[in-house]
Amino acid sequence: MTNLLLKNVRPMGQTATDLAITDGLFAKMAAPGAEEIDCGGRILIPGLVEAHTHLDKSLLGLPWYRNEVGPRLIDKITNEREVKVALGLDPRVQSERQSIQSMGFGTTHIRSHVDVDTHHGLAGIEGVMATREKLAGYVDIEIVAFPQSGMITRPGTVEMMDAALAMGAEVVGGLDPCGIDRDPRAHLDAIFGLAEKHGKPIDIHLHERDLLGGYSTEEIIARTLAHGMQGKVTISHAFCLGGMDRSYVGALQEQLAEARIHIITTAPASAPVPAVKELKELGILTGSGSDGFRDTWGPYGNGDMLERAMFIGQRNNLRRDDEVEIALDICTFGGAAIMELKGYGLAPGDKADAVLVEGETLTDAVVSRAPRKLVLKGGKVTARDGTCVLEAP
Amino acid sequence: MTNLLLKNVRPMGQTATDLAITDGLFAKMAAPGAEEIDCGGRILIPGLVEAHTHLDKSLLGLPWYRNEVGPRLIDKITNEREVKVALGLDPRVQSERQSIQSMGFGTTHIRSHVDVDTHHGLAGIEGVMATREKLAGYVDIEIVAFPQSGMITRPGTVEMMDAALAMGAEVVGGLDPCGIDRDPRAHLDAIFGLAEKHGKPIDIHLHERDLLGGYSTEEIIARTLAHGMQGKVTISHAFCLGGMDRSYVGALQEQLAEARIHIITTAPASAPVPAVKELKELGILTGSGSDGFRDTWGPYGNGDMLERAMFIGQRNNLRRDDEVEIALDICTFGGAAIMELKGYGLAPGDKADAVLVEGETLTDAVVSRAPRKLVLKGGKVTARDGTCVLEAP
Ligand SMILES: [Zn+2]
Ligand SMILES: [Zn+2]
Repeated sequence: MTNLLLKNVRPMGQTATDLAITDGLFAKMAAPGAEEIDCGGRILIPGLVEAHTHLDKSLLGLPWYRNEVGPRLIDKITNEREVKVALGLDPRVQSERQSIQSMGFGTTHIRSHVDVDTHHGLAGIEGVMATREKLAGYVDIEIVAFPQSGMITRPGTVEMMDAALAMGAEVVGGLDPCGIDRDPRAHLDAIFGLAEKHGKPIDIHLHERDLLGGYSTEEIIARTLAHGMQGKVTISHAFCLGGMDRSYVGALQEQLAEARIHIITTAPASAPVPAVKELKELGILTGSGSDGFRDTWGPYGNGDMLERAMFIGQRNNLRRDDEVEIALDICTFGGAAIMELKGYGLAPGDKADAVLVEGETLTDAVVSRAPRKLVLKGGKVTARDGTCVLEAP
Repeated sequence: MTNLLLKNVRPMGQTATDLAITDGLFAKMAAPGAEEIDCGGRILIPGLVEAHTHLDKSLLGLPWYRNEVGPRLIDKITNEREVKVALGLDPRVQSERQSIQSMGFGTTHIRSHVDVDTHHGLAGIEGVMATREKLAGYVDIEIVAFPQSGMITRPGTVEMMDAALAMGAEVVGGLDPCGIDRDPRAHLDAIFGLAEKHGKPIDIHLHERDLLGGYSTEEIIARTLAHGMQGKVTISHAFCLGGMDRSYVGALQEQLAEARIHIITTAPASAPVPAVKELKELGILTGSGSDGFRDTWGPYGNGDMLERAMFIGQRNNLRRDDEVEIALDICTFGGAAIMELKGYGLAPGDKADAVLVEGETLTDAVVSRAPRKLVLKGGKVTARDGTCVLEAP
């Protein structure tokens, strides 16, 4: 394993210094013979954390998909399930393509929801697991078994979820208990049951808005407390927290904080979103992700978590430098805390997962989003000048 | 003047063909000895139209400005007026820097609001006029005399606006008649009076939301009809059209359509915005712009109008290809129609202002936003591979 000495580097935008990396960890002093890298006064941040994406379904590298899908959530779900095979979408190949693109942008950790349904079975899980193995040491991938098409309305899905978790998916997924499964009690009992059986955390997609999403959130809170799962449950999207009735939302957020439930927000421009500054004040851990991109749902996105920090900033109207830094924190330390990553950071003893970014300040780095000069994973160079050292299939 | 033959080019993403340019105009046949340019099957679109920006106030090229400004609109206005001089912000230099950056992204036409106030007088107008002259033939700049600090509350401003228009500013600006000037009748009478006196169109900033903005809009409509200025008035931002009461907004939009008032939207993620598909259905001309960027108001933005098309798409939840094409149309033909550009387009006889973009389809070009291969202004190459042929000061 190469030992490094990063010369003239500014950790988190602070004063320039030298940083040693020994045996894949940041160290107080350089090891004898450590290879020197001149960082040219650039800023070093810990590896970007992609805490919510869908590695199995991007269309990266495939011919352009002309989107003519209907406007409802169920239109997108149904269309995707039907066209996957016709498009030649192979979860193993697509997850490798997307992971490599993300690595070029400085991502070192990915939490991916992966579809589990009675149509495609565990093909998605198997594909992403193969990629995880192939890319071991370059990027860490955590898998959420995700019942995209519903569980209760599609008999056999709970058993497939169970099998996915037994195979090694680390997190139990879920989806709109009212809006999609039309049976919140059965849906939530099922996922909390799976979590208890396998001793695994939960990360549930919740697009339901206003009082409907509030109701589902209350039910999630109740089960989190009943199962003693404080600190082990994440709600992704939580559009209901972007609702207009701020006194209702405020009370809901206090309950979430008490139950130590985490929030992941992708900060979409066209939906109500959780107010990240309010979550921070309440001590609710907040992470972010690209969600699906370049897929049958829509053409936007690229996996760049610095761009995502910009989107969080724009959506939350964060203009002051100290505010934009909150958005970047969500895309680094926030996601890392939710995923319970060990040794995440730039302190001595932390894993040397880091990105060298361009800019005078952290905010400049977020808004400029220049190609990443260098990406390190465990002290190994995984990308240079915006391009991953691995070639995509 | 060079005559060109663009080989293997796809106008608006259609089948590959050859396109001739003679004496600065698209032509049916190539002139003898025309220089051939291989376009490699790339898509050609007309020059991007930056229909709303502030050339006089970007901080491009200056040291990083740490933003610690308060949350209200008036905080931003006051702070900016106070710090301009201390920051060494020279409107001539800054407008040239921004224009050159925009040209690199494929912009061929700019409408810029330029501050007119009793603090800085006409310094902004003079600076942007100097840049307009210097960049003549490379990019067209239209100037809006803009009373950023209010007119009625700051005596002497109306006279300065009058002087700016006499000097050659093409458009009469305005700003939140209730929210900033606290006297809608006096404010609107003043700008319509200036428009009538100088025979020039109006483009008014309207951030006022909900019923307050609706009230101002009704007053603008009434004066547009009374002054016979149908087709000559633009409302920029029009956040009130993003209001929740869609039946009220619908009625307001119908009146706007009848008065042939145009809308310019920058589609910010954190404010209510006009629904561009509704405007299109009503036949209301819609353009877009970057608004101010990298300024004392906030750090975001770069002048890339393809990125702006993406923002419009994301904010309006445009996912289908035919929908994303609406967003691009707003950033090209929409802005051009509002600015009444002559000979805008790719047809024979149109001015050869155009951009060669990367992508399989128009939507791909918008979401990928790769560096622009080639930018032409009147048939002259003004940028290559994302970089303007002119050097910024
Ligand atoms: Zn998702
Ligand atoms: Zn503006």
